[in-house]
Amino acid sequence: MGEYRKVYRKLADLGEVFEILSKIVKARSLRVEEVPVEKALRRVLAENIKAAYSVPPFSRALMDGYAVYSSDTSLAYEDKPVKLKLAGVVKIGEAPSFELRKGECAEIDTGAPIPYPADAVIPVEYTCKTPSNEVEVYRRVAKGENVDLVGSDIAEGEIVAWRGEIVTPQLIGVLLSAGITKIKVYSKPQVTVIPIGSELAEPGVELEYGKIYDSNSFMIAALLEEAGASVKRLNIVKDSYSEIKDAVDRALEDSDIVVTIGGTSAGLGDLTYRVFSEYRPGVIVHGLKVSPGRPTVIALAGEKVLFGLPGFPVSCLNIAKLLLVPLIKMLQGTSPSVIEKTVEAELLSPVRGAVGLVKLVPAIIAERRGKIYAYPLSTHSGALYTLYMSDGFITIPENTEYLAEGATVSVRIFSENFRQRVLFAGSHCPLAISLLERLRERYSLKIIITGSLTGLNLVGKKIADIAGSHLYDPSTGEYNIPFIEKYKYRDLVVVRGYLREQGFVYRRDLKIKSFTEIIENELRFINRNKGSGTRALIEEIIKREAKKEKVSSREFKERIKGFEYEVKTHEAVGYLISRGIADVGVAVKYIADKYKLGFTKISTEIYDFILSKDILNKNIAKDFMHVLDPSSLKKIITLLPGYSLHKDTGKVIYAC
Amino acid sequence: MGEYRKVYRKLADLGEVFEILSKIVKARSLRVEEVPVEKALRRVLAENIKAAYSVPPFSRALMDGYAVYSSDTSLAYEDKPVKLKLAGVVKIGEAPSFELRKGECAEIDTGAPIPYPADAVIPVEYTCKTPSNEVEVYRRVAKGENVDLVGSDIAEGEIVAWRGEIVTPQLIGVLLSAGITKIKVYSKPQVTVIPIGSELAEPGVELEYGKIYDSNSFMIAALLEEAGASVKRLNIVKDSYSEIKDAVDRALEDSDIVVTIGGTSAGLGDLTYRVFSEYRPGVIVHGLKVSPGRPTVIALAGEKVLFGLPGFPVSCLNIAKLLLVPLIKMLQGTSPSVIEKTVEAELLSPVRGAVGLVKLVPAIIAERRGKIYAYPLSTHSGALYTLYMSDGFITIPENTEYLAEGATVSVRIFSENFRQRVLFAGSHCPLAISLLERLRERYSLKIIITGSLTGLNLVGKKIADIAGSHLYDPSTGEYNIPFIEKYKYRDLVVVRGYLREQGFVYRRDLKIKSFTEIIENELRFINRNKGSGTRALIEEIIKREAKKEKVSSREFKERIKGFEYEVKTHEAVGYLISRGIADVGVAVKYIADKYKLGFTKISTEIYDFILSKDILNKNIAKDFMHVLDPSSLKKIITLLPGYSLHKDTGKVIYAC
Repeated sequence: MGEYRKVYRKLADLGEVFEILSKIVKARSLRVEEVPVEKALRRVLAENIKAAYSVPPFSRALMDGYAVYSSDTSLAYEDKPVKLKLAGVVKIGEAPSFELRKGECAEIDTGAPIPYPADAVIPVEYTCKTPSNEVEVYRRVAKGENVDLVGSDIAEGEIVAWRGEIVTPQLIGVLLSAGITKIKVYSKPQVTVIPIGSELAEPGVELEYGKIYDSNSFMIAALLEEAGASVKRLNIVKDSYSEIKDAVDRALEDSDIVVTIGGTSAGLGDLTYRVFSEYRPGVIVHGLKVSPGRPTVIALAGEKVLFGLPGFPVSCLNIAKLLLVPLIKMLQGTSPSVIEKTVEAELLSPVRGAVGLVKLVPAIIAERRGKIYAYPLSTHSGALYTLYMSDGFITIPENTEYLAEGATVSVRIFSENFRQRVLFAGSHCPLAISLLERLRERYSLKIIITGSLTGLNLVGKKIADIAGSHLYDPSTGEYNIPFIEKYKYRDLVVVRGYLREQGFVYRRDLKIKSFTEIIENELRFINRNKGSGTRALIEEIIKREAKKEKVSSREFKERIKGFEYEVKTHEAVGYLISRGIADVGVAVKYIADKYKLGFTKISTEIYDFILSKDILNKNIAKDFMHVLDPSSLKKIITLLPGYSLHKDTGKVIYAC
Repeated sequence: MGEYRKVYRKLADLGEVFEILSKIVKARSLRVEEVPVEKALRRVLAENIKAAYSVPPFSRALMDGYAVYSSDTSLAYEDKPVKLKLAGVVKIGEAPSFELRKGECAEIDTGAPIPYPADAVIPVEYTCKTPSNEVEVYRRVAKGENVDLVGSDIAEGEIVAWRGEIVTPQLIGVLLSAGITKIKVYSKPQVTVIPIGSELAEPGVELEYGKIYDSNSFMIAALLEEAGASVKRLNIVKDSYSEIKDAVDRALEDSDIVVTIGGTSAGLGDLTYRVFSEYRPGVIVHGLKVSPGRPTVIALAGEKVLFGLPGFPVSCLNIAKLLLVPLIKMLQGTSPSVIEKTVEAELLSPVRGAVGLVKLVPAIIAERRGKIYAYPLSTHSGALYTLYMSDGFITIPENTEYLAEGATVSVRIFSENFRQRVLFAGSHCPLAISLLERLRERYSLKIIITGSLTGLNLVGKKIADIAGSHLYDPSTGEYNIPFIEKYKYRDLVVVRGYLREQGFVYRRDLKIKSFTEIIENELRFINRNKGSGTRALIEEIIKREAKKEKVSSREFKERIKGFEYEVKTHEAVGYLISRGIADVGVAVKYIADKYKLGFTKISTEIYDFILSKDILNKNIAKDFMHVLDPSSLKKIITLLPGYSLHKDTGKVIYAC
């Protein structure tokens, strides 16, 4: 095992680690078990399988009729039938007791064996049986017509399935047809998952401030189970050397692989590494050349593999997908090439690499006219939801500092779903969401909340099909359209949405009408992210108030306590104020009502929908236009505080 | 329910039946159950799910260091640090007990909550703590740097998952993070599958001549289980009205859907239809406008659905995939659009439609440079293995008689696997198979046995990557190359394979050296399929012998008993002779040895490999060339009777 030690104490290359894991798998004989074919769905074959019987096991009739020598019928016509002697009858499920001679025929059921050497079946509707036991045939049949030849599907002794193949319903059908009832498959690897972290709380308990729920261990358990492992999860273990050591010892008793999550960072004294070092042959990887996922530890305890995953969800999932899932698949005899699913895509927004690391950037993918495009999502390793929204990872090679828009990138895809769905992207709005929801019943629709500007960008670049946006242009007083023109997007239509009230949202004991009041009362403001329509509104109001106060906007902003503190949804603004973490923010009226907060209207703004022309002819666009029609929208909109119809609601107000 | 009756007693359109099933599903309220999130993998959400907590639930540090106001650090440089007062310490898992003021900082762990309103974390390596409880900061941090904002991933109250979504490992992570522990999912539909047919035998019993194993019921059970149903299979039921009625009655007691397989054909008196007619509201579909799969019966028994599938495997699987799987998915609240996966492809060989029916033709699919191509496989509804080899169905619309090569067709795909694999197609040869098997350990390689000519066709049309062929051209005395030139294929290389002996294979008590002897002794011959290399050899020998006998080839062939009786593999020839069904055939020596039959050599022929230039640079091609190298091939070839090396084995002998 000495050679595995070579990457010890330096950052390990992903490919190198993959090779090491492959070698570990190859060095051991995989466990195999015999299972009944019908219980083997999704298991992996551990042997090549030869047909025990031919399929069909005899030549059989595909129609009810008469088995004949086709050459005997060559002169048969509707007005000049050929007469054949009836030599006998063959029933389904029975063996023929006679051999057919020239000039003879045999009555036969669909599925019954053809008497040798008949080579065709004339369907009963083209025949007439005479009282003298003769059969009149009214058309010719070609050789082989209506005959299913013995072994024509599968011949006895032929390999019908291969080692490493995954058992599908069709294969179950093939195997049972060919007389196979039991097959050898690879045993499921036994895995124990151990969540580590003093900040973790078990799901279901009340969450204290400063704690987070352990979700990683369940996510990884599900991922590995899907990959074919049999997985057990232990309860949360604190950041303590002895507790971790005890848990790993316990897990090793009945596992092929032990996965810890968390406890790998330097701040915690690199606990997992220290525990893993106790086993022999010991640590083989201490740090990976991958971002996110760098603080990964891998060790061997005898033939067993210890996997220390980082605790941040993206890192954790990332490394589990890159290394653990392949390891588990290899332990079941699947070829590594089946595991890696990558597509080439054109990059729609620049990305930066990480020095000395392979960087993986979550991306949204779209297929347009056979070509694949990737839109990178900016994120960090804690952002699980961003990962959940994404379709795969863009891989930025180790020595690449920067990749420009238009570059060809390799994307590891999570699934092929992106090929068939419709994508909505844009600003968060409770009403927009409830309208889209109606479409989800009939269509494969993915909804991602990105803010107005990114949404517009995505539909402009044809990654998204529909965007929701409320971007205000102060110089024209118009919404959204000036931005489409500014970016020179093409093949879009804008459908007028509705009006919604935006305003100051604040603690119920206050009454706020301006930023000047916020500054005077030293209130804690909670800001919105740049690129959001609401942030644009905030900046516009501040510009006006600063002018009145005769200071620069910058100076004015500096006086607002917490101005730097950005969140990305209306919900978060309401939530933080309701929890007493901040005093005031800007959001839609709906949120003020929801969180029972005070509200002072700033403006009534327009929320529009921008559709890609590509989907205009599709049913989903028609249905969406129907939902937006004032007659149907009216009923919903009255239920939501702060919302109202625009005079052009549901109309196409712009096309380019 | 009256309106469902309108298609009764005429062939029903597939789309129409689909609409009926959708209506049936919509008319009932789907059963819903609550399950723990971690047990919900692959289940379908029955509700939209809102976050109970924000993720992260507080703003937290992404690094070990000091929480600061970023504006306080704007003048910090390596040689001119800024001093901040240490206001306190925040540990992971603990709530901060103080608020940070300008000019202050707080020591903080990765993952610990940021004290309000700090907006950045300066990593510990850029700081120095002085004895006077001050911290020197050596570089500036930008606003938000190393901070994971509250709700930046998910905001409380936000919808994080949608009704109809399938629960993935990532979603499990998202839900648990957001404080959700239980979710409502749709209940699994209960299905009972009943195999019908007097010719059926239970797998595992000895097969009597004329019987076949029941494989359909297990295949369909697996398919429906994969679609999310909970499936029970009953034992085989004979072709008897009362037995079928009893079984259906029993199944209805605890099933939402009862599926019978077989018993739908007119020859059996349309038993399933007669049984289904007993229930109310009764039969809604009696025959489908689809081929294969026409004799399908669908009925309603109260709210329950009775599905009578045809007994031929392709028809059976076809209809199950087209209608039953969507029905089961709809009963779990999945939108129909998720179910239908179709791609547009260019047709590589003409296909014929069926009068008055939508015809589905199994096809092999390949993706080359972003474009998809479909190669139709000729088959009939009994050919399960052909279906197993195929990647999807080409749909030929109802009124289309013929589609020419180059036409754009719609293909329903079984999976996306075709995008990543390497495809071998061609002539069956035990040695070729054992060589390819070595590649399967490392690569995703699909092997299909099509005969030499189809194999050459597939690689020539760039559907396959490697072909195996032994086509002899009598006019040049060469193998394979003249055929590549004849069809004007491009971008191929021919790698010389090996030599193998072909000859007469016959019952051990005989001794056969010619077709003349076969005719004289009235022996039962077993022929090979047209397009196979061996058939070409047979035709060549016959031409010679006929000339010697001074008769036409056609006349000579007519004298051979069973000449019309074709099978498509060497194995089948050996098998049929060994079982006493025929006396003599032509096959490789290996088969004679395997089945302990007599053998007289006719010729030593060449088996070559033809590779598409597209894969020449890939590792699989390199590995394959290595396997074919005489030094490695030598060891294997000596173990197989009748095989030997050619002087050019392993060399590229032709490129175009």
